Amino acid sequence: MLTFELLATDPASHARRGRLTLNHGVVETPIFMPVGTYGTVKGVMPRSLHEMGAQIILGNTFHLWMRPGLDVVRSFGGLHRFEQWHRPILTDSGGFQVWSLGAMRKITEEGVHFASPVNGDKLFMSPEVSMQIQTVLNSDIVMQLDECTPYETSGHVTTEAEARASMEMSLRWAARSKAEFERLENPNALFGIVQGGMFEHLRQESLEALVAMDFPGYAVGGVSVGEPKDEMRRIMAHTPHRLPAHKPRYLMGVGTPEDLVEGVACGVDMFDCVMPTRNARNGTLFTRYGDLKIRNARHKTDPQPIDPSCTCYACAGASGVPWEAGGREGFSRAYVHHLDRCGEMLGPMLTTVHNLHYYLNLMREIRAALDAGGYTEFRQRFAADRARGI
Amino acid sequence: MLTFELLATDPASHARRGRLTLNHGVVETPIFMPVGTYGTVKGVMPRSLHEMGAQIILGNTFHLWMRPGLDVVRSFGGLHRFEQWHRPILTDSGGFQVWSLGAMRKITEEGVHFASPVNGDKLFMSPEVSMQIQTVLNSDIVMQLDECTPYETSGHVTTEAEARASMEMSLRWAARSKAEFERLENPNALFGIVQGGMFEHLRQESLEALVAMDFPGYAVGGVSVGEPKDEMRRIMAHTPHRLPAHKPRYLMGVGTPEDLVEGVACGVDMFDCVMPTRNARNGTLFTRYGDLKIRNARHKTDPQPIDPSCTCYACAGASGVPWEAGGREGFSRAYVHHLDRCGEMLGPMLTTVHNLHYYLNLMREIRAALDAGGYTEFRQRFAADRARGI
Ligand SMILES: [Zn+2]
Ligand SMILES: [Zn+2]
Repeated sequence: MLTFELLATDPASHARRGRLTLNHGVVETPIFMPVGTYGTVKGVMPRSLHEMGAQIILGNTFHLWMRPGLDVVRSFGGLHRFEQWHRPILTDSGGFQVWSLGAMRKITEEGVHFASPVNGDKLFMSPEVSMQIQTVLNSDIVMQLDECTPYETSGHVTTEAEARASMEMSLRWAARSKAEFERLENPNALFGIVQGGMFEHLRQESLEALVAMDFPGYAVGGVSVGEPKDEMRRIMAHTPHRLPAHKPRYLMGVGTPEDLVEGVACGVDMFDCVMPTRNARNGTLFTRYGDLKIRNARHKTDPQPIDPSCTCYACAGASGVPWEAGGREGFSRAYVHHLDRCGEMLGPMLTTVHNLHYYLNLMREIRAALDAGGYTEFRQRFAADRARGI
Repeated sequence: MLTFELLATDPASHARRGRLTLNHGVVETPIFMPVGTYGTVKGVMPRSLHEMGAQIILGNTFHLWMRPGLDVVRSFGGLHRFEQWHRPILTDSGGFQVWSLGAMRKITEEGVHFASPVNGDKLFMSPEVSMQIQTVLNSDIVMQLDECTPYETSGHVTTEAEARASMEMSLRWAARSKAEFERLENPNALFGIVQGGMFEHLRQESLEALVAMDFPGYAVGGVSVGEPKDEMRRIMAHTPHRLPAHKPRYLMGVGTPEDLVEGVACGVDMFDCVMPTRNARNGTLFTRYGDLKIRNARHKTDPQPIDPSCTCYACAGASGVPWEAGGREGFSRAYVHHLDRCGEMLGPMLTTVHNLHYYLNLMREIRAALDAGGYTEFRQRFAADRARGI
């Protein structure tokens, strides 16, 4: 089940404000979806996700298939009760992880044969298997199995012919995914994925064929796979706004705060990326006024929180009053720097809360700007704030 | 500042119910104090500590002296604001960690010379230095510098003569600690530490000499240092109840849930131990019905929470309704087992919350039993429950 309501559009760009209703609840778009690979967003309590305003999170089909395995998830009736997250979940198809096994897998038209990285078992992934797994996971949004066309392979940049062959197989797998999804009577929503590498006319062919199959939503895949930033931006500008206006659009694996603001202008409704969580663990923190490296010695005695304008638990404590408004309950940069230096778990716990809150709050501000009809001004203010420096 | 009110005593044992008032608040005793070595209880948000009912936490003087260093803590006016914990804090003297440096340190009557494990700097620890550091930390309870008499050294069990010499030096250092604490006009409370190894008559001498110095509270040190369990229990039965009844008694570094229940019966008011937090990270979980190894494969599909009677966030979710009472918001053993297996941070985050909650709740139940005059019955029920098995 999926309904998508278009609430407002920006006259100056392709940006739109929408509302997505799924089996486990409502998602206000544009939205960023935190990544919860193994049934947990790394380092975050589910209730912190609620407090930060997370509306929908990701799970990785391949990882969850390996561990804990389908028997375990099935005994909980799906992923929601297993991980105690009762709002919407989107799962990927598992394809990307199978591809990443490199020499350990063999791709055919039928599917992919590979050895389990956990116990060496011989396994097989196909559009049908991916649908069967995602049905057990009971994710609200199911992704078709596709072949994620690489930007380059060992230095060889993917040719147009290679990108076409890959894209055409993904289309055949889209049809097989859809047929199996329907056969399984999966009550959730299946998204098709536009491929075509860095070739706009292939992207166009892919999206037209997918639209003809009438999916309830569409993703743009095969970006953020190692290509130069301007190539990613070119595809982001090309494809999303050509997808049907009355259906949600998901740009997979993107990106920086700047990418999100730009992506919304290109007509994207949904984003996911490991950047906020992974960078948090590496000490790179996003703030309204630019990025901050908490490992830098200049933070050693700084009493300010990570982001003086932020209302997250790390920056503003339980009261949520930001430093700029006089709040003094947050944790200082000096303290977070100290925790990182000592390898204390509380360090990544606090930085992850902050970075995710930053992303989710950015999307909240984007939605508010779209609601108020001021997205152009928002983009200017955003760029000026980020350039100010922290 | 310290006041101690004796609220109730158990006619059948040395157990007592008390109330300790310190500069940063009130502590109901008997109490367990979570250990926050580097200014953080490992893996726990301060607000979780509040929710679990933590009243006072520990900091380690030696570790905090090394990192972040006194300049940083001084710039925050002490440890409370640095770590954003505004209730009482107790700091140890730093002696135990200096001793543990082994070959890297040299002990004299004056103090201990050692090389910093962080940067190799030549450093000196003495009763005066310990008091100076703890004054910067501004901990509510300051511990004297003592020599922690080992149970054995490279297989040689400490002799009576060695234990006496060590205990006598600790007494001289108690006097020096007190003089420096007063010279510094430290507004907090200094505790003396009873030593004497496994020799009851030395313990008696030590405590009499310390009582003559009139400290506002007393600790029993030199237990839980590698001695057999029955030796620890013998000293625990000997010393605490001989200390002044109108002052708080702190048994350092002890112990298991059974040790705590027994220690209270021996007249102890305060405990600390790394066991709940360290065991949580190793997958050994305490429950009302016995200990549980979450890594055991039998938990793989178990829908029950760690402890069906527990109201912590891990076992009962945000509602706090335990499994036994029909609550289904907690995280299953299957999920915690899965998190541990995947090395996910949320695993130790949840198990630490649970184990600390277990210890703090145990002390709450002990206090309630003492308030109600039913400590004998409580001990019986506690032993029967723990023997039941989980
Ligand atoms: Zn923040
Ligand atoms: Zn619990």
